[in-house]
Amino acid sequence: MVRSFIDVEPDSHFPIQNLPYGVFRPLKGGQPRIGVAIGNYVLDLAQLDSAGYFDQTAVSGKNIFSQPSLNALMSYSRPVWKELRLTIRRLLDVEEPALRDNKGLRATALYLQNDVELLLPVEIGDYTDFYASKDHATNVGTMFRGKENALMPNWLHLPVGYHGRASSIVISGTDVRRPQGQMKPLDSAPPIFGLSRQLDFELEVGCLIGTGNEQGLPVSIEKAEDYIFGLVLVNDWSARDIQSWEYQPLGPFLAKNFATSISPWVVPFEALEPFRVPAPKQDPEPLPYLRQNSPGSFNIQLEVYLQSDAMKRRNRISASNFSYLYWTMAQQIAHHTIGGCNLRPGDLLASGTISGPAKDSRGCMLELTWRGSEPLQLENGDERTWLEDGDTITMTGWCQGDGYRVGFGEVTGRVLPAALS
Amino acid sequence: MVRSFIDVEPDSHFPIQNLPYGVFRPLKGGQPRIGVAIGNYVLDLAQLDSAGYFDQTAVSGKNIFSQPSLNALMSYSRPVWKELRLTIRRLLDVEEPALRDNKGLRATALYLQNDVELLLPVEIGDYTDFYASKDHATNVGTMFRGKENALMPNWLHLPVGYHGRASSIVISGTDVRRPQGQMKPLDSAPPIFGLSRQLDFELEVGCLIGTGNEQGLPVSIEKAEDYIFGLVLVNDWSARDIQSWEYQPLGPFLAKNFATSISPWVVPFEALEPFRVPAPKQDPEPLPYLRQNSPGSFNIQLEVYLQSDAMKRRNRISASNFSYLYWTMAQQIAHHTIGGCNLRPGDLLASGTISGPAKDSRGCMLELTWRGSEPLQLENGDERTWLEDGDTITMTGWCQGDGYRVGFGEVTGRVLPAALS
Repeated sequence: MVRSFIDVEPDSHFPIQNLPYGVFRPLKGGQPRIGVAIGNYVLDLAQLDSAGYFDQTAVSGKNIFSQPSLNALMSYSRPVWKELRLTIRRLLDVEEPALRDNKGLRATALYLQNDVELLLPVEIGDYTDFYASKDHATNVGTMFRGKENALMPNWLHLPVGYHGRASSIVISGTDVRRPQGQMKPLDSAPPIFGLSRQLDFELEVGCLIGTGNEQGLPVSIEKAEDYIFGLVLVNDWSARDIQSWEYQPLGPFLAKNFATSISPWVVPFEALEPFRVPAPKQDPEPLPYLRQNSPGSFNIQLEVYLQSDAMKRRNRISASNFSYLYWTMAQQIAHHTIGGCNLRPGDLLASGTISGPAKDSRGCMLELTWRGSEPLQLENGDERTWLEDGDTITMTGWCQGDGYRVGFGEVTGRVLPAALS
Repeated sequence: MVRSFIDVEPDSHFPIQNLPYGVFRPLKGGQPRIGVAIGNYVLDLAQLDSAGYFDQTAVSGKNIFSQPSLNALMSYSRPVWKELRLTIRRLLDVEEPALRDNKGLRATALYLQNDVELLLPVEIGDYTDFYASKDHATNVGTMFRGKENALMPNWLHLPVGYHGRASSIVISGTDVRRPQGQMKPLDSAPPIFGLSRQLDFELEVGCLIGTGNEQGLPVSIEKAEDYIFGLVLVNDWSARDIQSWEYQPLGPFLAKNFATSISPWVVPFEALEPFRVPAPKQDPEPLPYLRQNSPGSFNIQLEVYLQSDAMKRRNRISASNFSYLYWTMAQQIAHHTIGGCNLRPGDLLASGTISGPAKDSRGCMLELTWRGSEPLQLENGDERTWLEDGDTITMTGWCQGDGYRVGFGEVTGRVLPAALS
């Protein structure tokens, strides 16, 4: 097994097999720049670039690491990303002396993760949110329309998705204010204004587009994965009471656009390759433009934790898996572009809530508490129907290898009381 | 009446009362920069800035005019925009010698509009599309759900809106490819794949946000107009057959995201002030956060023309007015931000299709032909149910003053056959 000269614990999310990209700023000061996580450290790629370590790669002289986002790097293509990744991997290998024995550079280019601030890694142009979990769509449909009409007629034929709000995407660790807005609690009453009482999280995984496509020219299903730069965890905060009143006929709007949190480390698509698995069998078979003839999913274990100030520890409230998703990322990209829509480097395509068949694998409070009717039991007799002010939601995810983990780290966020206007 | 030393015809859209901002590149070469339209000319603000004409303003030394977008200028606030506008207006005034008598600068800083290429004026971060015309929502609802259920229960209580696609917004004059995709023509059949046969335009007006608001802090209805930098015409191209199959439950997606066209000149909000009129009376009275106590609409005349290669002239197919809109721009902004969503400089908030009560004031083919059942009669016995390849749609709009017009110019686009994948 490949090993780094930097010690990495077996349960670390960041072994040499991962090497996720992020944007950081040293706490002691300095400009934002691009780094790679390795164990408990961040490797400063801007310094390695200055020292000539990337002179033999396609990004040499392009100044792509002294930047406040990954977008410039993302706008290249798979061969360039692969070459860069192999170069970094070689430099961190225990057998490779170039960086290992350069004590001066190691002292300045390796930061403890505790000594840096992680920033939003990508300038996200457009954010699309899919609805790709069949269990999630079935559960939500059952609650709102009954078991017989749970899935809309289109659901099994195409990956349903909609445009989300890019401006309010925040980095993990950012507090999220409870939204206020218009809702209609009872069928007979006029709508009211107030604080959302049904605040929720949504466990999702986001796919970040690298290479873009030209407007008017669709991406074929066979080539779709070539456009993926990497993946992050996504918490798509939701206000269910606002959503149920506003969403017809044009879809969710204020119920979702107050905040979406993403994890800071972008796991390269290449790092997931050993964990590729088939997606669930699709019946009916989709139309040819959505037909994927190779396994298109990944075995990524996912967990959600809730903790309030009063709780001594965080409570695991969900354990799910990326491979439950019915529609794959390649299918999402092929569908997104089939009419000619252009994707740009840095665009985010999130999966939608990831729920599995088991009750504890459901990816949001709406499903976990069955719309509030079955409260979650937490430590010390505490319970939850929806999120309360002060609650912190933490999501994590990883692929389990033999003796190592390719992990996503965490996306976390705490609920603040609303700012009243 | 204020007059410029530059001759402006009475029916020109660009008298000294307007002074819309745009981004242009001289055909003879050079970098994109910011200009203002005056009569048949474009005034190069970058050159005026270099010559010191803005030294007394807040933007002095900020290099905001030698840029490929208006975003830097837009990120200021109303007092700065007003001061700049008054400065430009003074410089163009027939009584003011500073520029009038500077023959050298006039020769280089004034371009005939025919001698420049107009570019997308704004880097649009997020694009929101509302559904603010009651006549439009009623017509569409009647066609799809019957007269009794035409308006959804929420429609009279809040400005329904959804997130659109920013990446595919194009400048007027850009050809638009007919999308292909999945649709379901008959209730009994499985879905099919093919070219959209129900291609449509949508006549809209877009509001461009200048000053942004902080995430978590709503904008009050009283202050909402302060956030508006200016307005443009919008054609939100739509594929109705794709839309009717995909849109439930999360709203339109591929039916809209293949292209949206905007006009090149951004009409300053200040230029519309003389044309302010009340919006239609709202019943029921909206909740306090949406209650606007001053007239919030504008008398902007709007027209749509269709022309194919075979037609000798363009055929006017709709004549509408911005003041038909039920929900105002201030209400849209107050609603958009009430849950904490942040608007950023350059965000586009479009009105949704603008239809009036008269049949010929409807703003899209869906309504004009009543879903294809009443074809439009054009010259020489030609007719249309939906748009055909080669059709050019041109929208125009203006406010009629006493002896002058504050106009939007045009947004135009031609339909190309699909690119088959």
